[in-house]
Amino acid sequence: MKHFEFENDKLIVLDQRKLPFEREYFVCSTYHDVYVAIKDMIIRGAPLIGIVAAYGVVLGFKEIIEKNMESTKIYEIINYLASSRPTAVNLFWALERMKKIFEEAKNLSQSQIYSLLLDEARKIEDEDKSINKKIGEHGNTLIKEGANILTHCNAGALATGGYGTALGVIREAHFTGKNIHVYVDETRPYLQGARLTAFELSEDGIPNTVICDNMAGYLMKLGKIDCVIVGADRIALNGDTANKIGTYSLSVLAKHHGIPFYIAAPVSTIDFNIKSGSEIPIEERSEDEIRFFNGKKIVPDESKVFNPAFDVTPAENITAIITEKGVIFPPFEENISKLKEK
Amino acid sequence: MKHFEFENDKLIVLDQRKLPFEREYFVCSTYHDVYVAIKDMIIRGAPLIGIVAAYGVVLGFKEIIEKNMESTKIYEIINYLASSRPTAVNLFWALERMKKIFEEAKNLSQSQIYSLLLDEARKIEDEDKSINKKIGEHGNTLIKEGANILTHCNAGALATGGYGTALGVIREAHFTGKNIHVYVDETRPYLQGARLTAFELSEDGIPNTVICDNMAGYLMKLGKIDCVIVGADRIALNGDTANKIGTYSLSVLAKHHGIPFYIAAPVSTIDFNIKSGSEIPIEERSEDEIRFFNGKKIVPDESKVFNPAFDVTPAENITAIITEKGVIFPPFEENISKLKEK
Repeated sequence: MKHFEFENDKLIVLDQRKLPFEREYFVCSTYHDVYVAIKDMIIRGAPLIGIVAAYGVVLGFKEIIEKNMESTKIYEIINYLASSRPTAVNLFWALERMKKIFEEAKNLSQSQIYSLLLDEARKIEDEDKSINKKIGEHGNTLIKEGANILTHCNAGALATGGYGTALGVIREAHFTGKNIHVYVDETRPYLQGARLTAFELSEDGIPNTVICDNMAGYLMKLGKIDCVIVGADRIALNGDTANKIGTYSLSVLAKHHGIPFYIAAPVSTIDFNIKSGSEIPIEERSEDEIRFFNGKKIVPDESKVFNPAFDVTPAENITAIITEKGVIFPPFEENISKLKEK
Repeated sequence: MKHFEFENDKLIVLDQRKLPFEREYFVCSTYHDVYVAIKDMIIRGAPLIGIVAAYGVVLGFKEIIEKNMESTKIYEIINYLASSRPTAVNLFWALERMKKIFEEAKNLSQSQIYSLLLDEARKIEDEDKSINKKIGEHGNTLIKEGANILTHCNAGALATGGYGTALGVIREAHFTGKNIHVYVDETRPYLQGARLTAFELSEDGIPNTVICDNMAGYLMKLGKIDCVIVGADRIALNGDTANKIGTYSLSVLAKHHGIPFYIAAPVSTIDFNIKSGSEIPIEERSEDEIRFFNGKKIVPDESKVFNPAFDVTPAENITAIITEKGVIFPPFEENISKLKEK
């Protein structure tokens, strides 16, 4: 089985908290289970959160039918799912698509509405995979033969419908024979890099080396990094990009060393409603993600802990944004606006 | 008991790998045990490594007496201890002092030589504590009322004879009532920040917040950091400074945000024999420090791991170097050279 599957009115997801050494599945039978899967990071990655939330709406509507509730109860369910995580805009984008389908269909029978919602969720899923392939192809034009690429967090197959955004570019470069090598930030506190990205790359036979996040600058200084590619959770109209905490530091370091810094993300990650990154809410997660490791306490009780899950990289630190519609260069505000019209 | 003690021909050290939640002691009965304590990071911190190595020479000489060996065997023992870790210069500096004492005393009886070596080790220990207090006082002149100070790794009492270098400055600022707050980088992979620095600060009632290393840049951008203070493992004549991996990245980030970046270290950390940081050997440690976390594997077997223990911060990123002889500002080459003459 792949990392998620909707079958027989159940969404089964691979528990990414246990990867790579344990392979456990979490079964979502209700929209509440989907909410938990997103909130507790059983699944994560901006595009995947969107897909999974869409299936959450399907499960919600199933419950409406089974409990003989009004169809409009779906609005409440959509709002509930939207409250699972605040930063990634793909969540709201996918829920918006589902809402639109509902509104167009609301005078049909409940079973017809259910079918249309399920179709839309599957469409969001399938589209994402082909979008990633296109991101990979566009991004690959930026990658040189033999490049050493640094990535942070996991913007791979596990973060999407499949193939990946940043890792889609890396896969494309690898499978077109460019002999690349990837440095993987372990990505504290959740270790998405060490656990998920290194795992995905190794499964595909892509040479990779895991480092601690604090080693990236030293590698750049040694001349060992040719470019940085990361994913995104939300991109503002001016190009400012929210992504996993630590991305901002990397962008400053890359700029200091004259290293290209690329964002790879689907157009659905762009929030055309916000002008700059200052409007993006930054989720703060539980202190325990830092305080404990594998159930063992590592920080004294008297110390406080600060755990922002994301940061915002200003547009001026970004060399280009790689989307399924092509590679966007500065001026970002102008060129991102054009994407909306496409 | 404090974090190390030489008593009855045994050096007993607090096992810093187990802190803060377990308090275990490691007993060094031989110079080989001291070598292990340094190499395996049972104790760490450049000044403490120097002190402990000096006691290692004492234990080595004890063995020479007990086994009826030639006194000159001590040269071999000194070389062996010097091979325990390559980056911190305090190790070589302390061993050099012990060697000098031996050479001055070598025509005396072995028990007299032993006494003189023990006196010198105690002197190195005692001097270090008063040096740290002076570093604290000089450094405190740079700290503003209510400052938010970022530190990396542990340059505290646990890294020294007592009081600490970077944490000596922080202690001095706290105890003179400046209402400071300290952000502590957890410092992967060994977590000296989360485990040791947060512990020391909390024991002394100094308000502190632990963050992951990759969050420091974001905090700087939010305007939450007023200055950075770290220790050092070796300082070149031009001011280039080797310190715990991640220090270089912090220095670039601090410069980018216009935040003062201070090094606090005793003059014994200065290597007057090397002109620049490029001559400092950088220790690479075992992959397993990153591959495993609390005994649990986190990196797939197929992935490589890179684990440099230190990096070099170029002098141009350093605002000032705080020593027991005063605060050194640029031009560093000129002002550091003057220190040697003092």
